[in-house]
Amino acid sequence: MDFARPLPEYLIKRYQGWRATTYSENKGWYRRLADEGQRPRAMVISCCDSRVHVTAIFGADSGEFFIHRNVANLVPPYEPDGDHHGTSAAVEYAVCSLKVSHVIVLGHSGCGGVQGCYDMCEGKAPELEEKTSFVGRWMDILRPGYEALDTGDDSVRVAELEKRAVLVSLENLWTFPFVREAVEGGTLSLHGLWTHIGEGGLEAFDPASKRFMPV
Amino acid sequence: MDFARPLPEYLIKRYQGWRATTYSENKGWYRRLADEGQRPRAMVISCCDSRVHVTAIFGADSGEFFIHRNVANLVPPYEPDGDHHGTSAAVEYAVCSLKVSHVIVLGHSGCGGVQGCYDMCEGKAPELEEKTSFVGRWMDILRPGYEALDTGDDSVRVAELEKRAVLVSLENLWTFPFVREAVEGGTLSLHGLWTHIGEGGLEAFDPASKRFMPV
Amino acid sequence: MDFARPLPEYLIKRYQGWRATTYSENKGWYRRLADEGQRPRAMVISCCDSRVHVTAIFGADSGEFFIHRNVANLVPPYEPDGDHHGTSAAVEYAVCSLKVSHVIVLGHSGCGGVQGCYDMCEGKAPELEEKTSFVGRWMDILRPGYEALDTGDDSVRVAELEKRAVLVSLENLWTFPFVREAVEGGTLSLHGLWTHIGEGGLEAFDPASKRFMPV
Amino acid sequence: MDFARPLPEYLIKRYQGWRATTYSENKGWYRRLADEGQRPRAMVISCCDSRVHVTAIFGADSGEFFIHRNVANLVPPYEPDGDHHGTSAAVEYAVCSLKVSHVIVLGHSGCGGVQGCYDMCEGKAPELEEKTSFVGRWMDILRPGYEALDTGDDSVRVAELEKRAVLVSLENLWTFPFVREAVEGGTLSLHGLWTHIGEGGLEAFDPASKRFMPV
Repeated sequence: MDFARPLPEYLIKRYQGWRATTYSENKGWYRRLADEGQRPRAMVISCCDSRVHVTAIFGADSGEFFIHRNVANLVPPYEPDGDHHGTSAAVEYAVCSLKVSHVIVLGHSGCGGVQGCYDMCEGKAPELEEKTSFVGRWMDILRPGYEALDTGDDSVRVAELEKRAVLVSLENLWTFPFVREAVEGGTLSLHGLWTHIGEGGLEAFDPASKRFMPV
Repeated sequence: MDFARPLPEYLIKRYQGWRATTYSENKGWYRRLADEGQRPRAMVISCCDSRVHVTAIFGADSGEFFIHRNVANLVPPYEPDGDHHGTSAAVEYAVCSLKVSHVIVLGHSGCGGVQGCYDMCEGKAPELEEKTSFVGRWMDILRPGYEALDTGDDSVRVAELEKRAVLVSLENLWTFPFVREAVEGGTLSLHGLWTHIGEGGLEAFDPASKRFMPV
Repeated sequence: MDFARPLPEYLIKRYQGWRATTYSENKGWYRRLADEGQRPRAMVISCCDSRVHVTAIFGADSGEFFIHRNVANLVPPYEPDGDHHGTSAAVEYAVCSLKVSHVIVLGHSGCGGVQGCYDMCEGKAPELEEKTSFVGRWMDILRPGYEALDTGDDSVRVAELEKRAVLVSLENLWTFPFVREAVEGGTLSLHGLWTHIGEGGLEAFDPASKRFMPV
Repeated sequence: MDFARPLPEYLIKRYQGWRATTYSENKGWYRRLADEGQRPRAMVISCCDSRVHVTAIFGADSGEFFIHRNVANLVPPYEPDGDHHGTSAAVEYAVCSLKVSHVIVLGHSGCGGVQGCYDMCEGKAPELEEKTSFVGRWMDILRPGYEALDTGDDSVRVAELEKRAVLVSLENLWTFPFVREAVEGGTLSLHGLWTHIGEGGLEAFDPASKRFMPV
């Protein structure tokens, strides 16, 4: 472990500033959160992309959202095979232990993971097809979304695939017995969103029209 | 997909407020991030826990950190077996595609995932030992951390295990050939942190003393 | 060039300390900045005054701010006359080449340049009125700000003139076609700040009330 | 002035953090600096480039360095023609009013302004040759440096030109009567430096060998 390094100074400074202001002014709430444990109302599944910040968009306070972030905001299908499933573990913990009331899947424009999936499915990214490519194997989850795309321009199809990533994740969530049970029991609802980074836009999947509509 | 639901009104309101203020005042930066793509300087691996917010602690702007969040901020060992590995995909994308300069693993106090692991290893959580428990199978990654604990009070050992979760993740990161290569090539550094939620504290792993020290 | 002298030893020592710590711990980031070039999100125009440090105030890391510093943080009007215009060159480079998203003009209390301008306009600094006075001719840029001052105590008027220096610069920025185009195109925003050195205060120009307000 | 915008929230947060920590812990010093005025020991002339931070490299405290930053760290020749000369004003203020003991010109690797000058002189950047190009006209100051380059590879010549930018500035400083007088009177010394951003290197001009040598 001699490879670990000290934290860059500017991050230490910023942290100390946060502690002296935000923490200090909200100490009571942080202590209560620590003493009583978290009780988030929603789980958000979003992308690791540095431009996507669900806490900013939704003005979230500490303790509000249980947030899982992975490449391309994907949920794999229910596969209780004894392997490590980080996303499924997060969903299980949120729904069964924390009993969140909402699971929100948030996709976004310009997603590098989705672009990689598209290129791979088009046969233009052989390196992603290799067994050893973690990104490639992860993006396999989105292959059914690619298969369902309409024909058209690449840029239109990629944007469409970003929204399909949200829908595939919702569909896969539905394959988890405990998710289905909670939804059918009226204690959980599922939501699909997609944000346009450059425009600051937000669209929500509307089950009536089966389309994403600006909120 | 008729199970999807509209977004709660209060979240729509908050989003609209964000768009009219933060987005509007920083439109140029968001557009540039959208046009030029992200170029984050660091990847952060933290817990899904709703009380942990790395962007707040470090005063981060949109575009600064590529953030992966899973239960207990764990990184599994390098296993290129062709399965879906969400965490490994995020690490691969950050290091190989985005070429981040830092990977920061951030643990925290009161971690429910770590507590579950501890209970499971102590034989007190049989439900987590079942093959179908996603949380249990995910927390198996931390078993070597449990084995290395000193004897003592449960509460001390659980807090110690939270820090071990950071160290196990760092050790597992080291098993990824591309991580090791980047570190040895001088383009990447690894950092281990642990935050005390109630006290707003932050400790960093110090490779010299092999201990976590307050920053 | 035999007039050049070696660097004072204490500066060499400090540099060597920085290289062995800050540089060494962030080597990957510095190399990446060197390889990929800078991509600052903002330009800051501040005073040369040794007491003004925008990187400290804003916890900035290497690569975040493109910083131009001159006497009294002034921007002259747009004058493409073929002469050397250092400030205009910096603005042009920031806006047209780097495409920064923000230009922040930062004034400060106790500004010697502003005091000189005030004294000169009051007829109390004849040496600054001479054609050969670079400081005097530079501070001519602020004369319109002096003309617009209310009557009152000298100390109040000087402090007011420091804030006028920020406003005059913003107005002059607006005379640059490429600045105006970027602002109107939604890719750039302009901001006016003034910092009180002794109190560590920061005020921002509020376009609604047309006053500087504490942030 | 209705075009001015509020400061981005993350910068406000960071500022507030700075005030609650760094400022608060050093309040006495800041107040004294405000009451007694600055008394910097050196003037530094460096580039606006976001990757160059003289305060970091030299561990400078508030009040130590009077810093002028412009594109490519250039000083024009002495031209007391009554026009606005921002750099000359800064030099005059530092030497005549503040009576600094050192003027340090700091160049750096990967300088965009120097690269532009090189391309322009090679006839490959016609847009920089236009009268209306502020960057082009500013970089004209460095043309004598280009003329003095040895033949060779472009990349070697550009790096050489970065160092020439430091030397041209030193030579131009020497044309200012008050600079020469202070140097000859033994109250001022001039220094030339060049920093390699990616390697964290620092070289100083050595008048004996007439070369830049690592410090």
